[in-house]
Amino acid sequence: MADTEKYFDCNATTPMSAPARDTWLEMSNRFWHNPSSLYREAGAAKLQLEDYREELADLLGLDEPGRIVFTSGATEGNNALIDFLVQTSKKPVAVSAIEHPCIQAPAQRYLETGQVREIPVNVDSGQVDLDVASAWIRQGEVSTVSVMAANNETGVLQPWLELAEICQSHGVQFHTDAAQWLGKRECVELGICDYVTGSGHKFGGGKGIGFLVLPDNDKCASFHGLLGGPQEEGRRGGTENLPGVAAMVSALKDHEASALMAEEGRRSSERNEFERLLVAELGCVVLGQKSPRLWNTSMVVLPHTKNLKWLTRLSRQGFCVSTGSACSAGSGNPSRVMAAMGLDFERMGKVIRVSGGWTTNSKDWNALAAAFAEVELELRA
Amino acid sequence: MADTEKYFDCNATTPMSAPARDTWLEMSNRFWHNPSSLYREAGAAKLQLEDYREELADLLGLDEPGRIVFTSGATEGNNALIDFLVQTSKKPVAVSAIEHPCIQAPAQRYLETGQVREIPVNVDSGQVDLDVASAWIRQGEVSTVSVMAANNETGVLQPWLELAEICQSHGVQFHTDAAQWLGKRECVELGICDYVTGSGHKFGGGKGIGFLVLPDNDKCASFHGLLGGPQEEGRRGGTENLPGVAAMVSALKDHEASALMAEEGRRSSERNEFERLLVAELGCVVLGQKSPRLWNTSMVVLPHTKNLKWLTRLSRQGFCVSTGSACSAGSGNPSRVMAAMGLDFERMGKVIRVSGGWTTNSKDWNALAAAFAEVELELRA
Repeated sequence: MADTEKYFDCNATTPMSAPARDTWLEMSNRFWHNPSSLYREAGAAKLQLEDYREELADLLGLDEPGRIVFTSGATEGNNALIDFLVQTSKKPVAVSAIEHPCIQAPAQRYLETGQVREIPVNVDSGQVDLDVASAWIRQGEVSTVSVMAANNETGVLQPWLELAEICQSHGVQFHTDAAQWLGKRECVELGICDYVTGSGHKFGGGKGIGFLVLPDNDKCASFHGLLGGPQEEGRRGGTENLPGVAAMVSALKDHEASALMAEEGRRSSERNEFERLLVAELGCVVLGQKSPRLWNTSMVVLPHTKNLKWLTRLSRQGFCVSTGSACSAGSGNPSRVMAAMGLDFERMGKVIRVSGGWTTNSKDWNALAAAFAEVELELRA
Repeated sequence: MADTEKYFDCNATTPMSAPARDTWLEMSNRFWHNPSSLYREAGAAKLQLEDYREELADLLGLDEPGRIVFTSGATEGNNALIDFLVQTSKKPVAVSAIEHPCIQAPAQRYLETGQVREIPVNVDSGQVDLDVASAWIRQGEVSTVSVMAANNETGVLQPWLELAEICQSHGVQFHTDAAQWLGKRECVELGICDYVTGSGHKFGGGKGIGFLVLPDNDKCASFHGLLGGPQEEGRRGGTENLPGVAAMVSALKDHEASALMAEEGRRSSERNEFERLLVAELGCVVLGQKSPRLWNTSMVVLPHTKNLKWLTRLSRQGFCVSTGSACSAGSGNPSRVMAAMGLDFERMGKVIRVSGGWTTNSKDWNALAAAFAEVELELRA
């Protein structure tokens, strides 16, 4: 197993879990035939693929496994979905202001034409403005609402279930990008959403694999994520990546079956104690601290000095943290999530995201807090 | 290693090679961090990614590794490329009539608008009509020419190198889909093309991974295969699949270094002997038989009875063959390649594609010929 006691960047990526790796190897060795070919071995691979689709449907609370389209990850799914929604809707698509760049970037192209509308965010809580979204839904102003399940930077849980229910009773479609939710919280209720996006590598399921849930209706017959062969019932061309699918589903199943999923309270407390130390002893501010959040995530504003200097010094001590999402970290662009939460440019340069994992324990959190304190001393000197 | 002596569907997919699997495991275990994050371990993963990009550039004869964008496979690359070419070109894009569905399907949307033109195919040779294409290029009628390196159904080699050179001297861009060429023939000359598409699982490099080569010029700054993060220099969002990349490059490197690559003559002879038996003893016709072809592929028209009956009976004996490409086989649609080569509907239902691999030897070919003979007796009875 990967050494993860000093790894606090699980919202960026996670190591492949042991069940996922074992399944990947077995599928790669035994069921490598093309599931779309017609001989016996291909049929066996196709059966495996459909078994994993069925298992994933059960985990997500879907009656109809055929609603699942396997993709190369959340970016592919979200890109294709935004285009599809805009092209098949007469009314605007409402997208929250704190979505991941793989939703924001495609959606922004349609802001000017009015085909996409942005749902604002409460600057204190870090949650989308439920009143604004509800009003649009009730007044029939939008065709679809897209709000992520949990924010990748702050970990703040979004009111996706409430929104899904309001949408359902008003004939509006609902999409949630569950990339950060899956594997960290129970996911069986996600099936209520018309559209759900997931990404394997965020929960130990491996890189280059993900899924998109579509509604089981005629409208989606025109969904073609990638054009080419008839794979995934014509909704996503390209040879099926069975080892990737099997690894992803095995990882998620393992999380859902694990006792860890029930330990949200203990895990949150351990993270909270870390935050208490950072606030009390270093004068940090935690974003969205009073909101319901993922048990693993802290987005802190540092008391002084640019975040990159902290990150580098923590890295020297072996700790892995982030200056935001890995996507915006690499580009050096200011985070749109932070902007939506009202941070000015100076404070944006002082944020550090810390995101633990399933093996992170209170000793690890305390060690990280001590490392922060040490860096603070160094930087103050 | 996978048991492949009766596997004759290598143009559909191949088992992962041992070097690819070993590399995948090593990268998954050791370099699982997000290459776009900023701490030490992420930097190490980023270095690995760039090393593999450099290695692939060397294999393809590219001076500039930055021309390579890693994708989830040829379907993603070809879909994105056709859209990009059409949207950035004032003149039509010329696409051959025998391209893979992942080029044909996106291209067909632009046939009516005149933004795409189809290059016809010589019905006997199975090669694109070089005269037509050359005339369009010389007369400056098209912006780009897209012709695959080797056809996936007949194995017929296309005049991509000639076309690339003619294009180059007339300021026209050239793309080749090299999915079937890579790993079967030397690929160092592909670098002459402006655009090249590749797919890992066609040469033992694993499923769900591929690449797209772009020209190293300003024009391609506007290429964004998937929108989102700044990965792949902003040309393809989504967390980098380093294990997949490493496996794919390792497989290709292994093929290029292997003595097998030099044994094209012997391998072709073994396949030719198989064809001789099918023609002489069963009255089969081999499509494109007189053309230069991949050493592993035979597209045969059977003497009688629908191809599916042959496939099923061969499958009972353990042999894996195809009724066309896996893509069209699964859908039951008639092959556009066969239509372009002038086959009528009845003959289309009598084609079987046979595609051997690197471990296929003359004993295996002879066993397959014997199985065909046996099935012929059964079906004639």
